Amino acid sequence: MNPGITQRVVSKIDVSCPPRSIHDELAVEEPLEIRVAGDSVAVTMRSPGEDTRLAVGFLFSEGIIESIDDVGRVFHCGRPGTEGYGNAIDVLPAPGHSLDIERVSASRRGTLTTSACGVCGRRDVADLVARCSVLPPGPEIPAALLTGSIDGMRRNQPTFTHTGGVHAAAAFDRDGDALACSEDVGRHNAVDKAVGALLFDRLVGAPGGAVLLAVSGRASFEIVQKAAVARIPVVASVSAASSLAVDLAADVGITLAGFVRRNGFNLYAHPERVVR
Amino acid sequence: MNPGITQRVVSKIDVSCPPRSIHDELAVEEPLEIRVAGDSVAVTMRSPGEDTRLAVGFLFSEGIIESIDDVGRVFHCGRPGTEGYGNAIDVLPAPGHSLDIERVSASRRGTLTTSACGVCGRRDVADLVARCSVLPPGPEIPAALLTGSIDGMRRNQPTFTHTGGVHAAAAFDRDGDALACSEDVGRHNAVDKAVGALLFDRLVGAPGGAVLLAVSGRASFEIVQKAAVARIPVVASVSAASSLAVDLAADVGITLAGFVRRNGFNLYAHPERVVR
Repeated sequence: MNPGITQRVVSKIDVSCPPRSIHDELAVEEPLEIRVAGDSVAVTMRSPGEDTRLAVGFLFSEGIIESIDDVGRVFHCGRPGTEGYGNAIDVLPAPGHSLDIERVSASRRGTLTTSACGVCGRRDVADLVARCSVLPPGPEIPAALLTGSIDGMRRNQPTFTHTGGVHAAAAFDRDGDALACSEDVGRHNAVDKAVGALLFDRLVGAPGGAVLLAVSGRASFEIVQKAAVARIPVVASVSAASSLAVDLAADVGITLAGFVRRNGFNLYAHPERVVR
Repeated sequence: MNPGITQRVVSKIDVSCPPRSIHDELAVEEPLEIRVAGDSVAVTMRSPGEDTRLAVGFLFSEGIIESIDDVGRVFHCGRPGTEGYGNAIDVLPAPGHSLDIERVSASRRGTLTTSACGVCGRRDVADLVARCSVLPPGPEIPAALLTGSIDGMRRNQPTFTHTGGVHAAAAFDRDGDALACSEDVGRHNAVDKAVGALLFDRLVGAPGGAVLLAVSGRASFEIVQKAAVARIPVVASVSAASSLAVDLAADVGITLAGFVRRNGFNLYAHPERVVR
């Protein structure tokens, strides 16, 4: 069994057919905390599987180990069967070696203050739901608003047109008008820029504000998180949705659509908002 | 002028035509340090432009600000014209407000120890070149190894086949045999897993080791950085290369190819390794 794949029930919307429910396969997304001799050096959202390679490859890229000879035992922390087991991995130095974790670059290093052994996607979902409260039901969103959002975003991507090398995020109101559209080499940054633009225009949580966030990349946990905090009830991704994004969308009350095309899309959470 | 776009000379390789040099437009990638009242809270690789929106949107997503009313002056740090100017931005609280930066999630927060005001892509390039030394010239790499690497990687992507939602990275030897191939929801993680596999097999910096790293996503600074540390002389991306990835590849001696297809690719740095 591939630990990077899970199944979910998905509503398949096609403009020319009645909607139908299917079992679809999704990429699993779960946090991994990488530790060196008990000290946390990074947390990354990853596909479970090959965790030992990921931890060792990461420490090598960051200059903390120079070869496999620096590495002793590598093991998942905690007790099998407990919550979050498998999501924290510890790398011990080989006998007679020491590893300097201060070398980890600032942009990758987390400053975890938890002493718990293990991180857990379910806990991330619960934390966010506690922090930003569940979105209320409604409003009704025409399916055409989703299918049209991708073209709407595409018309506002001058940097992509020239370079093919940047992501985009766009926020739309109920009439399908783009309230904000931003580009960035980073998926998260494009969303932060679009949300920032909404904030400056006082369009967050306001009447006439954004009801749909379109993104050019995958719908991951962090993308849905940003939509939840910005109180945008629908997220439309050109690409796939991860398991943790779907779990968060379901719990926080967000309608999550993936593989959005001109003639249809998949609904992974809260399909009831979408009307034809 | 769009600050997110720059121009570079690129060698266009097409299997059916002689190579030609063109001026191509690339997405600019530069670090941005986000500060709150002088304290660094994050460093992200981003497209320059809309920095104010990015900083404010990021702080909002992380729960540090609740509305635009919490925000006072937002400004780029340092002196215009100095190195790195424009790559650090400071968000001051509005009069009478205070901002708690401890809320930034562990996975996004950087632990910068520098007191310099401003980060700089050129400095990141110089730091890495100093840390891992320039790769020597050679070996010669047939163009067919690059064009074939994408299919070779694609044949080793079971999770992508099922979900459409994960990236891949694969390392090849001079005969075009895949030495490692990994998948992950994160681009960087896929590379770390592949490099980790090479380390365990003692194929890093060894005779018969990897000469080409293929990646399913964009070639950004961090991808080239990981190849440089792992002493892999050629990076082949299905997608675009960023400005900083090209600068790093040029300085560290890596051949960087983008938009790699069955019938051709673009060479952004060190085209001399590629023979037809």
